[in-house]
Amino acid sequence: MPSSPQSSLFTVDLEPTGRRARVPAGATLLDAARAAGVDIVASCGGVGICGTCVVKIVRGEVSALNQQEREVLSPEEVRQGLRLACQTQVLGDVGVDIPPASLVRGQRLQLEGQSTDFPFQPAAQIVDIACAPPDLRDLRADMTRVNDALGAAGKPPLAASVEQMDELSARLRREGWRARLVCFPDGRLAASLRSGSPVLGVAMDLGTTKLALYLLDLTTGGTLAAAGVVNPQIAYGEDVISRISYANRGREQRRQLQTMLVNTINQTVQAECARLGLDPSQVVEYAAAGNTAIHHLFCGLEVEQLGRAPYVALVDQALSLQAAELGLAGAPGARVYLPPNIAGYVGADHVAALTASQERLQESPALLVDIGTNTEISLQVDGRWFSCSCASGPAFEGAHIHDGMRAAPGAIEKVEFSESGLRLHTIGDLPPVGICGSGVLHAVAQLLEHQRVDRRGVFTPRLPGGFQLVSADQSGHGREIVITRKDIHEIQLAKAAIRAGIQTLCRRAGIQETDIRSFVIAGAFGTHLDLASAIKVGMFPPLPASVFHQVGNAAGVGARMMLASISARQAAERLARLSEYIELTIAPEFTGYYENAIYFPER
Amino acid sequence: MPSSPQSSLFTVDLEPTGRRARVPAGATLLDAARAAGVDIVASCGGVGICGTCVVKIVRGEVSALNQQEREVLSPEEVRQGLRLACQTQVLGDVGVDIPPASLVRGQRLQLEGQSTDFPFQPAAQIVDIACAPPDLRDLRADMTRVNDALGAAGKPPLAASVEQMDELSARLRREGWRARLVCFPDGRLAASLRSGSPVLGVAMDLGTTKLALYLLDLTTGGTLAAAGVVNPQIAYGEDVISRISYANRGREQRRQLQTMLVNTINQTVQAECARLGLDPSQVVEYAAAGNTAIHHLFCGLEVEQLGRAPYVALVDQALSLQAAELGLAGAPGARVYLPPNIAGYVGADHVAALTASQERLQESPALLVDIGTNTEISLQVDGRWFSCSCASGPAFEGAHIHDGMRAAPGAIEKVEFSESGLRLHTIGDLPPVGICGSGVLHAVAQLLEHQRVDRRGVFTPRLPGGFQLVSADQSGHGREIVITRKDIHEIQLAKAAIRAGIQTLCRRAGIQETDIRSFVIAGAFGTHLDLASAIKVGMFPPLPASVFHQVGNAAGVGARMMLASISARQAAERLARLSEYIELTIAPEFTGYYENAIYFPER
Repeated sequence: MPSSPQSSLFTVDLEPTGRRARVPAGATLLDAARAAGVDIVASCGGVGICGTCVVKIVRGEVSALNQQEREVLSPEEVRQGLRLACQTQVLGDVGVDIPPASLVRGQRLQLEGQSTDFPFQPAAQIVDIACAPPDLRDLRADMTRVNDALGAAGKPPLAASVEQMDELSARLRREGWRARLVCFPDGRLAASLRSGSPVLGVAMDLGTTKLALYLLDLTTGGTLAAAGVVNPQIAYGEDVISRISYANRGREQRRQLQTMLVNTINQTVQAECARLGLDPSQVVEYAAAGNTAIHHLFCGLEVEQLGRAPYVALVDQALSLQAAELGLAGAPGARVYLPPNIAGYVGADHVAALTASQERLQESPALLVDIGTNTEISLQVDGRWFSCSCASGPAFEGAHIHDGMRAAPGAIEKVEFSESGLRLHTIGDLPPVGICGSGVLHAVAQLLEHQRVDRRGVFTPRLPGGFQLVSADQSGHGREIVITRKDIHEIQLAKAAIRAGIQTLCRRAGIQETDIRSFVIAGAFGTHLDLASAIKVGMFPPLPASVFHQVGNAAGVGARMMLASISARQAAERLARLSEYIELTIAPEFTGYYENAIYFPER
Repeated sequence: MPSSPQSSLFTVDLEPTGRRARVPAGATLLDAARAAGVDIVASCGGVGICGTCVVKIVRGEVSALNQQEREVLSPEEVRQGLRLACQTQVLGDVGVDIPPASLVRGQRLQLEGQSTDFPFQPAAQIVDIACAPPDLRDLRADMTRVNDALGAAGKPPLAASVEQMDELSARLRREGWRARLVCFPDGRLAASLRSGSPVLGVAMDLGTTKLALYLLDLTTGGTLAAAGVVNPQIAYGEDVISRISYANRGREQRRQLQTMLVNTINQTVQAECARLGLDPSQVVEYAAAGNTAIHHLFCGLEVEQLGRAPYVALVDQALSLQAAELGLAGAPGARVYLPPNIAGYVGADHVAALTASQERLQESPALLVDIGTNTEISLQVDGRWFSCSCASGPAFEGAHIHDGMRAAPGAIEKVEFSESGLRLHTIGDLPPVGICGSGVLHAVAQLLEHQRVDRRGVFTPRLPGGFQLVSADQSGHGREIVITRKDIHEIQLAKAAIRAGIQTLCRRAGIQETDIRSFVIAGAFGTHLDLASAIKVGMFPPLPASVFHQVGNAAGVGARMMLASISARQAAERLARLSEYIELTIAPEFTGYYENAIYFPER
């Protein structure tokens, strides 16, 4: 028991920060933390209702548990010695331990991978409110009470649907006139939840083949779970063109593609939430990046115009839609943010990748390429952006190749010529059953290197049956695996389209390819491709290795950034608005570049 | 053929305005009209796409029909000699006839009845757009084309649902890249219609007993149709208290009351549209005024808290909801505007009546009273507003009266004592079958006047069987019609509540009743009541007749004003915000006033 007079100061040690405060008797632990420059979360402003400032008393004397704390803390928390920092008064020298959840996090958002730093600032803002109950001397309507509480917290008045107002009123009357409100900047209510509830968001990279979903805690920005599932639309075509054809059959088919995608998303979100003891009704926002066709099919928009020249999008600006309109699970006012598309074949996924790679793209000139059946390229020169899409074909996905396959176990991904013959590497070190895109690229580069193929792509000497990589008895399926003249030709067409796209953008921007200071390669194929081979075959210009950055699934990272930070959205929207789209089919220089690029480079 | 040189001027007579312009050859008729100060509608700005500037050439030479006109005018219009003023060039002295639809209407809104002047300025703004179709040199997305056209017209970019964007894109591609857009001030799309389509709004006075619906042309502010129908909720109770009880049985019952009301509205709107060759999908906005309980029941909001002390509303601020959320017919983005409620028993209908009567309420002090089972009173003194609700009971609606009935054919509405006995007036001059509220009031005043009833409400001499108005053989149904001691008592309680309410408001405002300069009586009963009788029984203070204004269904007029003018909404919202609500059940002075007012005044 301290015998010191009221005027003397007590010491408060704030672990794990190592900070110490000296405060008079009666000061709260929150006061002490503030005095020491330690930011403790206190969503309600320190009035003892939100329960976010929980701390543990390690030693020393403090005030007894008060009524407010008894209401907010669970018996288990009380047993653990937990207290509300805003309610607990210092009565002696005290040591407290601040749990991570009570510390205000570093205000910068960091996601794994090659990411750009954006402040953690989700669109949906969280406010815990407490209202006085009505009586004959305080006849304000329920929603007026809510607006008054919001106003006191510096927030705009609520805009809500009838259903939301009805639900919120019932909650207030049931839960002692307290609630956690999640509101968008325009005042629209995303969700009203029990005071202190978790608040969730879902970021999605909607690929043509695969969907990547990330469940985020929107109170901290942390990723709670990640899941990859197959895009169920694949049953109606491997590529977007066949899905557009299917959707063109009629409204019902278009709706079907939309519904199956949304159902898969809902099931995945439901499963991840269940695993973590969370509820999909706590999801207040989605952010979804996909190419323009998948973007439209996800929304249920007409895609017929994307399937024929001049291939224009129905909508390309950023959208913030009601999640319910698309059938997505979530709080009644949940929204879906979709970043802008640049053009019919330069979609929101490309914009997301650019946003995620923004730091690497700040050098000038800088280029980002995402290789697929369509390859999207963006070039930044002195703050000006240029973009294009090249029809590079599916060769790099292993399609249209004699023994091609996806990058799956048993796929040859590397071919090396040595003194003792060929050395093959397969995915999973299994007996070879085919060759994947990066394997074909590598093989062609090796054939060139060892002069088994000439500049025109012709075998020297001629090999009418193609170049055998694996004999029938050494393969995993009892058939030989070869690279044919046609395979080499497919690679020539694909790499020529990409190189000519790069050259056209450089020409438009008034630079030389060799000026490029940062060359970012995004996407799954780009992650695995062998840079030396890509330069060898002439797909990429011969730049120093240090200029290249293989950044992986940048679109997924971008989607998470846009979910967690409105600054990232603003960056994406600015970028799309600034970008000058070059339509290669009418770019006069493109054809010449393309024809030249079909040949392999001089040694 | 005019032989005058190019430099000479031609005369253009613009009928029916009587104005004349002198313009050079080649000037358009629109130029001529503008030169003469005649406002012709030209929604598209005179580029020949909206078809709103149609005029008829009566005489003289003008340019031949051009391509633009051939596209916009129907063959029938061409046959009638109609032309687009913006496309037709003057080639000689010309006489034109301007159809009323092509003339810009007086910009002030006037509705029948006692109305206040508001500028015609509906929330939903109409823009006719025309876009260039996409080609390889213009790859803007469909919605970007729309936004660019809106921007050129000085409007904000569109905010629309996926369904709306899809529908608009289909319309543009089907109808030559033209459309009429109706947008709210926040950019949200109310409707996309065929270029030049009618744009409709529906104003509603949602009474407990009766619904009044008005179909408005939102391009002019004109009332196209009006319809009165019974509120179908009446099957679940004549008054709001019994409907609240029914709704309290459960969510299903509450939904049922909501749905039946909306269905009746939809059927009425559908029928009125069909009669006029219009389509409910052209309805872009509703404005609905009702008391707080009907307001909540219409929205489907919880009403349990309105049925017990302290009788607070769930929401009282003005609402702008999606019509679709309530199930109302209309364009996909149609909205419903609901003016604010002041309190649980001073509702949006009262606010609408105040708004409609604003001009008469500008004098100070001014009072508005709307008499019903609950009587709402507002008092304005030097710009301060006070309001209250008194439980005046249903006597004035003919209920709780021995031979009472609604104001229907056969109801006695006037009773005069003369030398030769009683003279009765019935509604429709039919044989009497009962007595309505205003009839009871009149009869009691006459009994007082002729000293057949004393100040306490007792018959002199005593009449245990009541005062016979009609004998059994003279009535329409073979039974006698009487006024009983209890009937007189009911009137005493009702009028005392109203008078004490007026007195309490005056006291709070620091004025005497006799200071009141404008005394507005709104509502159906108020329209028919005999002022002298109301003063005689002491319901109203003894003010000069010129101070009183019986304004009829001011709530219906107010609803139309708020549909047609955002200024009227602003006035209503300001008024509700400023109004100080006095809860009479806890107003200490009320009881004394009430007890005094039960007695009839001294002669």
